[in-house]
Amino acid sequence: MKQSKLFGKTTKTISKDIKITSHKLLYQAGFIRESVAGRYYFLPLGMRVREKIVKIIEEEMNKAGAIKIITPVLHPLELWKETARNDSVGFELMTIKDRNGSDFALGGTAEEMMVDLVRGFNLSYKDLPFNIYQFSQKFRDELRARGGLLRVREFLMKDAYSFHADENDFKKEYKNMWNVYKNIFQRLCLETVVVEADNGYIGGDYCHEFVVESDVGESRFLITEDGQYAAHEDVAIFKKENKNINEKEKELAEVEAKRGNTMDDGVKLHNMPLWQQIKDVMFIDDKGRYILAVIRGDFDINETKLLNITKSNDLRLATNDEIRKIGSESGFISPVRINKNVIVVGDDSLRTTKNAYGGANKKHRDLLNVNIDRDYKLNLEGDIAMAQEEFCDNNNKVLIERKGIEVGNIFQLGYHYSKKMNAKFTDCDGQEKFYYMGCYGIGVDRTMAAIAEKHNDEKGIIWPESVAPFKAHLLSLNQNEKAEELYKNLEQAGIEVLYDDRDLRPGEKFADADLIGIPYRVVISAKTLKENSVELKRRDSEKVEMVKIDELINKLKV
Amino acid sequence: MKQSKLFGKTTKTISKDIKITSHKLLYQAGFIRESVAGRYYFLPLGMRVREKIVKIIEEEMNKAGAIKIITPVLHPLELWKETARNDSVGFELMTIKDRNGSDFALGGTAEEMMVDLVRGFNLSYKDLPFNIYQFSQKFRDELRARGGLLRVREFLMKDAYSFHADENDFKKEYKNMWNVYKNIFQRLCLETVVVEADNGYIGGDYCHEFVVESDVGESRFLITEDGQYAAHEDVAIFKKENKNINEKEKELAEVEAKRGNTMDDGVKLHNMPLWQQIKDVMFIDDKGRYILAVIRGDFDINETKLLNITKSNDLRLATNDEIRKIGSESGFISPVRINKNVIVVGDDSLRTTKNAYGGANKKHRDLLNVNIDRDYKLNLEGDIAMAQEEFCDNNNKVLIERKGIEVGNIFQLGYHYSKKMNAKFTDCDGQEKFYYMGCYGIGVDRTMAAIAEKHNDEKGIIWPESVAPFKAHLLSLNQNEKAEELYKNLEQAGIEVLYDDRDLRPGEKFADADLIGIPYRVVISAKTLKENSVELKRRDSEKVEMVKIDELINKLKV
Repeated sequence: MKQSKLFGKTTKTISKDIKITSHKLLYQAGFIRESVAGRYYFLPLGMRVREKIVKIIEEEMNKAGAIKIITPVLHPLELWKETARNDSVGFELMTIKDRNGSDFALGGTAEEMMVDLVRGFNLSYKDLPFNIYQFSQKFRDELRARGGLLRVREFLMKDAYSFHADENDFKKEYKNMWNVYKNIFQRLCLETVVVEADNGYIGGDYCHEFVVESDVGESRFLITEDGQYAAHEDVAIFKKENKNINEKEKELAEVEAKRGNTMDDGVKLHNMPLWQQIKDVMFIDDKGRYILAVIRGDFDINETKLLNITKSNDLRLATNDEIRKIGSESGFISPVRINKNVIVVGDDSLRTTKNAYGGANKKHRDLLNVNIDRDYKLNLEGDIAMAQEEFCDNNNKVLIERKGIEVGNIFQLGYHYSKKMNAKFTDCDGQEKFYYMGCYGIGVDRTMAAIAEKHNDEKGIIWPESVAPFKAHLLSLNQNEKAEELYKNLEQAGIEVLYDDRDLRPGEKFADADLIGIPYRVVISAKTLKENSVELKRRDSEKVEMVKIDELINKLKV
Repeated sequence: MKQSKLFGKTTKTISKDIKITSHKLLYQAGFIRESVAGRYYFLPLGMRVREKIVKIIEEEMNKAGAIKIITPVLHPLELWKETARNDSVGFELMTIKDRNGSDFALGGTAEEMMVDLVRGFNLSYKDLPFNIYQFSQKFRDELRARGGLLRVREFLMKDAYSFHADENDFKKEYKNMWNVYKNIFQRLCLETVVVEADNGYIGGDYCHEFVVESDVGESRFLITEDGQYAAHEDVAIFKKENKNINEKEKELAEVEAKRGNTMDDGVKLHNMPLWQQIKDVMFIDDKGRYILAVIRGDFDINETKLLNITKSNDLRLATNDEIRKIGSESGFISPVRINKNVIVVGDDSLRTTKNAYGGANKKHRDLLNVNIDRDYKLNLEGDIAMAQEEFCDNNNKVLIERKGIEVGNIFQLGYHYSKKMNAKFTDCDGQEKFYYMGCYGIGVDRTMAAIAEKHNDEKGIIWPESVAPFKAHLLSLNQNEKAEELYKNLEQAGIEVLYDDRDLRPGEKFADADLIGIPYRVVISAKTLKENSVELKRRDSEKVEMVKIDELINKLKV
């Protein structure tokens, strides 16, 4: 198409609030515009990239046997009540009432809709398995939108849902989708790490995120150097080495402790190692329950792990007043003799030390020689620790901390939805059985941002050919007649070409071409025409090549 | 694809509430399923048809120079307030608040969004004209959904918006889009009538609907036999012949009138023609104003025309009590000496008679020899009459009444939005000027219903090739080995084929094929294989042809 007819413009000026590279480049090159925070217009260039990503995902999904359908955007809230997700998703779920008083959720994910559709058919084992997917606009009422397309409130998502007779059959599809995703991201020129992750409000027992490593990503994960173990911080486990575990248990003692409120203050006062101290953090959950998280002093608490153990929907730190109200003291909390209404959740690291020290639930009083089971009991016990760089995994391999952009995920759902929604099929033995399910998502818009984030230089975006808005960018330097002819020939040959026919200085055209990032730049000028040629340059290379006009099409068709 | 793997099934059972052919067939053949009233799932077959329709629209729009973009689904309500459309659209607009307290409308149409986007660029006359369009899910909080995809609450719509320097330039695009729409509907095998229509809440001065004639449609329009004049009932004008216009005005007289409340009662009592009677209908509008619509006795009032004259958003009939409260009497209302707070709106037909008769604003009292201007004055005057079959247009051609399905529309918007939203470009004279605009919509899902409505027989749908979910339907009658080979060859040749590999009786396969309505049915059986052939039958013909397997691909490729 002719650039003079392209709606949307490149721009040099940019708000100071735009800090992330992909955001900046997609804005400056005229791919996207913000409506209000977290809600974006896709301009023609952006649409073209988005549609190429969609097409690649679609091709791979179809090849893998999945079938495309679509659900309404408004989901009857009744369905979300069947699975109690209207609560768990909390503030991120947007709801609306129609004029007849019916309540709807704006689709965030579509498990309930798909299950409702499927249970409406009387299916048998002969119809299984199947994997139905859609591309549709999804809504998340995020507290904070950020980073252009990285965290938005409205976005295009591919979501797929598979239905199986049993777990074994599901596992085949999980592996199948894993490979499909690897292929998809490879075609999109995105290197992804597959990390174990938390299921969050989706439900089910396990899931994996496909993450593009990037400092601007929000997914923090731990990985071993050989990549054998990779897990999101919310599920990453690590080896908690035994410390003074063979020490004899000494007598519990309460001592004066004129110190500040920090862990460090405790270390200094008692001149004992940090790991021997007990770390206590008091939370209040969405049901108003006091939750005391207790962990070895040198570890931190991971709130998602804690949430999963307490089965709360939300947690917040208790205030000093609230802590006092329950009979303790900020900075001096202890699980020992804590108020019975407090739910004490302990990390398994507490069992790697003896004769620990920490607060006494009174200001300026500490306890020494605190021992689990003898001096305090846990209501809940498990792994609530945050994995850190340089910790080791269970095979003694050092963990490395990485950040990345989550572009896709695959979930085991098991019977989570089918049981809650009573969705059954007739098995070969004539029995009605619940579907075993999985689901598989890709955020299309975030994927686009990830590609721009990974493929750029100081001049602009460098689109991989598979998703580039056009294959070639034809720049006419005051040779519009010849350029127009070439443009038509290229189009006729089926080459997608953006033809810069604008009345601008060469420098501006070159700068725009670099910013927009189309893979092949073709320059036609008086100079090149003397040799009946054009200048051909790949966006990802510095090499400029003279190519005879007659040979250009063959050259580009490769 | 293999039918055994196709999600969604044909069904014989159907709810009694499903009365409209397209609804029935799309449901039974497994193209759609209802989530809740007016909100539909598209199953794989339905998705394929929908996407073919989308592709045709897209190709024609692109060819015509329009460019695809997309806006968010949630529109900041602030924008709708700028144009005051948050009021005028009334109950059909759904609104929602996010967790930060911002208000949004669920997109119904996107004029405000497009203008907001465009005014954010500093465009000049050099950038004009352009036409930007999108396909996106639209929301209308309809009081009643009906007829499957014919009137829904959520649907896919193609909406385009053009921006121009002036009216002349706009008019070219209006004509352009008119032709584009004609091409689109022709490719979709839909014969459309282009009728003048009311702009409704879109705004602007004129618009045209593209209507597919059908008794199940909701658009009632009037057309001359030669098709030279075609207009929706809400804008159709007709010739109002003069009656006793040369009669001398007689003296106004009030008489006793012991009669019922109907027009007919008046005719009988006074033994005078219906046309000489005055018809009075009292309304209350959304602002609480009394609106008295007055018209010649043999005509009816068109409420949309009345709304446009009174600039109300909504009208309802006044109750008997309300009529009495304003000092009149139901069945005896008269514009003569009516309460000054009543806005009297007269149809221009009142000037075609003299010495009319009608009520006297008192029970059982009538007035005779009522004459406009002398005995009563109008606050507003214009055409508020409903055109009817057998009336004549202004060229004396008889009007015929028709019903149809509105599948598309094109609107002149003029400065309606650009002025309200202060959207300007810099003209060649350096002056800032408002954009002159138009907009152009096609309801994709309703179009799909219209195609099914027009192309079917008692056995099922007969999809036109351009939108058929598959080109060929391969039925294996116990010959799956040979069929599988043929299926693969057809796919390899690029022919979209649905292969019925299911373990069913031939009769069931034939019935399903007719119901689903794929253009070419290919049957492979022991009998056909004896001749190394298949049986080929077009869905729209009874002729069955034996075709050598080797020749099938060439035959289908035509």
